[in-house]
Amino acid sequence: MNNQSHSSQLRVALAGLGTVGAGVYKILTQNADLIKTRTGKTIEVVAVSARNKSKDRGVDLSAVEWVDNPKSLATRHDVDVVVEMMGGEGDPAFSLVKSALGNGKSVVTANKSLLAHHGLELAALAEQSNVSLMYEAAVAGGIPIIKMIREGLAANNIAGLYGIMNGTCNYILTTMERTGQSFGEVLKEAQALGYAEADPTLDVGGGDSGHKLALLTALAFGCKPDFDGLSLDGIDKLTAEDLTVAAEFDCRIKLIGQAKKLDDGRVLQMVGPCLVQKTSPLAHVDGVLNGIFVHGDFVGPSFTSGRGAGEGPTASAIVADLMDLASGISRPVFGVPTRSLNPSPTASSDDWNGKFYIRLVVHDRPGVIAEIAPVLRDRKISIESLIQRGRSADQPVSIILTTHETTGADMHEAAGQIGKLGCVLGQPLVLPILNI
Amino acid sequence: MNNQSHSSQLRVALAGLGTVGAGVYKILTQNADLIKTRTGKTIEVVAVSARNKSKDRGVDLSAVEWVDNPKSLATRHDVDVVVEMMGGEGDPAFSLVKSALGNGKSVVTANKSLLAHHGLELAALAEQSNVSLMYEAAVAGGIPIIKMIREGLAANNIAGLYGIMNGTCNYILTTMERTGQSFGEVLKEAQALGYAEADPTLDVGGGDSGHKLALLTALAFGCKPDFDGLSLDGIDKLTAEDLTVAAEFDCRIKLIGQAKKLDDGRVLQMVGPCLVQKTSPLAHVDGVLNGIFVHGDFVGPSFTSGRGAGEGPTASAIVADLMDLASGISRPVFGVPTRSLNPSPTASSDDWNGKFYIRLVVHDRPGVIAEIAPVLRDRKISIESLIQRGRSADQPVSIILTTHETTGADMHEAAGQIGKLGCVLGQPLVLPILNI
Repeated sequence: MNNQSHSSQLRVALAGLGTVGAGVYKILTQNADLIKTRTGKTIEVVAVSARNKSKDRGVDLSAVEWVDNPKSLATRHDVDVVVEMMGGEGDPAFSLVKSALGNGKSVVTANKSLLAHHGLELAALAEQSNVSLMYEAAVAGGIPIIKMIREGLAANNIAGLYGIMNGTCNYILTTMERTGQSFGEVLKEAQALGYAEADPTLDVGGGDSGHKLALLTALAFGCKPDFDGLSLDGIDKLTAEDLTVAAEFDCRIKLIGQAKKLDDGRVLQMVGPCLVQKTSPLAHVDGVLNGIFVHGDFVGPSFTSGRGAGEGPTASAIVADLMDLASGISRPVFGVPTRSLNPSPTASSDDWNGKFYIRLVVHDRPGVIAEIAPVLRDRKISIESLIQRGRSADQPVSIILTTHETTGADMHEAAGQIGKLGCVLGQPLVLPILNI
Repeated sequence: MNNQSHSSQLRVALAGLGTVGAGVYKILTQNADLIKTRTGKTIEVVAVSARNKSKDRGVDLSAVEWVDNPKSLATRHDVDVVVEMMGGEGDPAFSLVKSALGNGKSVVTANKSLLAHHGLELAALAEQSNVSLMYEAAVAGGIPIIKMIREGLAANNIAGLYGIMNGTCNYILTTMERTGQSFGEVLKEAQALGYAEADPTLDVGGGDSGHKLALLTALAFGCKPDFDGLSLDGIDKLTAEDLTVAAEFDCRIKLIGQAKKLDDGRVLQMVGPCLVQKTSPLAHVDGVLNGIFVHGDFVGPSFTSGRGAGEGPTASAIVADLMDLASGISRPVFGVPTRSLNPSPTASSDDWNGKFYIRLVVHDRPGVIAEIAPVLRDRKISIESLIQRGRSADQPVSIILTTHETTGADMHEAAGQIGKLGCVLGQPLVLPILNI
């Protein structure tokens, strides 16, 4: 433990002053009395750094020292904690965090991408320097999910976790479902409203959810974080029809990040759209909200939802981490010392067993089902229901199938074969049907 | 901080070995490796005490010392923490906890009733002795709500919290709604299933929810816990008809404990059945589950749900507290030092402003509405909708009203007046309509 816990102040430097950075400064100012009563300390911002000094951020920073080079924050003697809010997996964030930890300063970050890629190295560095690396804000800012898994449910072996971890995707899916608009139309609207980035790839391709899932998996299962090994699927192939048809099965389609322990002990990690039963609380997480389900061996299912991102929730999570530090509390980055971490998860979507939803676009001619059915039969996949939507001699039609339980590997193989049939246009869409 | 944090063991004594006590022993045994990896310590049960030594509890206690008098656990030199699972607001639990804290031992308890009545005295005692008093298991065992409010959302001024805090009541209401059975019938079934006690008063009268609410209010608003001051209403006056009619307003009826900060700064505390909009996650908390909504000034709304009680969830919460203690972590009992606690809440259900649901049973004769309407008009309460159910010359019929926004005081006064009208049978049922 460094000397920060013996003084009456926790001295903080903020690197990055976008919406979140400004939000952190706002909480630390507006709720200063409450923070002092709750932690016994004053949390003082001694220096800030950002790209543009003259930008109006809606907060008065005149009393705080401005530095142009964020890296200099990491070596100052008057700083106990560096708050990294610049984002991005590489530099300058990466080298700033390394330098801060190496110089005996704790780090609080909202940077899921940095931790998903370099979390293990940074955790080891924090341990060597006997400082903390905290990241409640990196996953679902409005939900204290890191603390919940690391501490609240710590007595449990986690069997699985399932979550809606990206507000942009959830907003798009909710809107497609409500309005019947296409993915492209809703994405454009979301961009206009500021809910989606100009380059939406990281969100709609599932990468952002994957970053968060890699962190939650490491924490929940005590294994090395592994973003590169997880199965990743986005929402861009979904049609409004998929969302409507799902309702006929008493389901909704959500982009789910999931990690679970298989019967053989391996941990499965995957991100992709799934059908979720309407009886599950995940089905009622709408718009930009996030929601996460954790299943422990003694606690059973525990669910939590809230705002995923945005100034207030993300800043609230960062300040909660700062308050833990002010209270002298330090926890292993991934819940256990890095030397005790298990190897990275090795199971993927091929190992996901359960029911599936399949949508095919076919030429509407006799014998189509007779071509498809044997491909499924040969892999012992049995059909639970079949719906043909529309009927037209000129235009392709959709066939929607749901299957009984099968393995992901068989399902993906069968889908690949079906995609090659002459009567089928394009690749079938295959979605797992969650049973939680 | 006492010496427990310097050894490689946390030595624990269990007082009370009912379902929860046995569950705690089970977790500490089954998940011992995981607990050691996560905390760096072994949590060792050195002594247990319960009423009946010979009872089969499904766990092997032969390696643990049995003591007949639980109070002796509080003075043993080989005990760091006493886990109180005997229940009840009075002795022997009260004197055991006092003695343990006074003797420099931390206490972990699931006893909401004890803390709701004596929490302030015990918190002060824990402070004097520089030990911890922890109670995650006292409120919604499957939901780490104490940690969530005290730490996860600590950066926020809490605007309000709203929760389904009693699984027995929620089971009864859910079943009445699903089957159309009466309160009495479902209660009898719940008793047969073990979901309700032989004497169900504490659950169905709202007292148990009140105990939990008093603790959450103290924690969320930094005020002295005050069970006696809160407005308390049970579910025994509800009919299956109420639950059906609520659906016509896109609502469900739930027993809600709520605490919120009023515009004048006072804190309101009340427990009672409320109409909850179907768009609220609280409306989807069914059966024996609990669900709690917390609203912070920066984080916005944060919701969480899970099992409320039972062996696994309650024991999971107790062991989480023990793991915090093993990690050397100590927090003020109600989030801030007792000297910094604000006075107890003073506002009650009279100060609850909003829309109301009113059900009257009346003689079906002309002019009934003409008698009722002026009573409401005189208090400037305007009617939003009115439904008369059934129509019979011989039998009384129900009239259901919903109002526009008004104050609780006016509503309760008006209801009292309406109850005195000759055409009205019995007292009107008045339920707040939540807007969250």
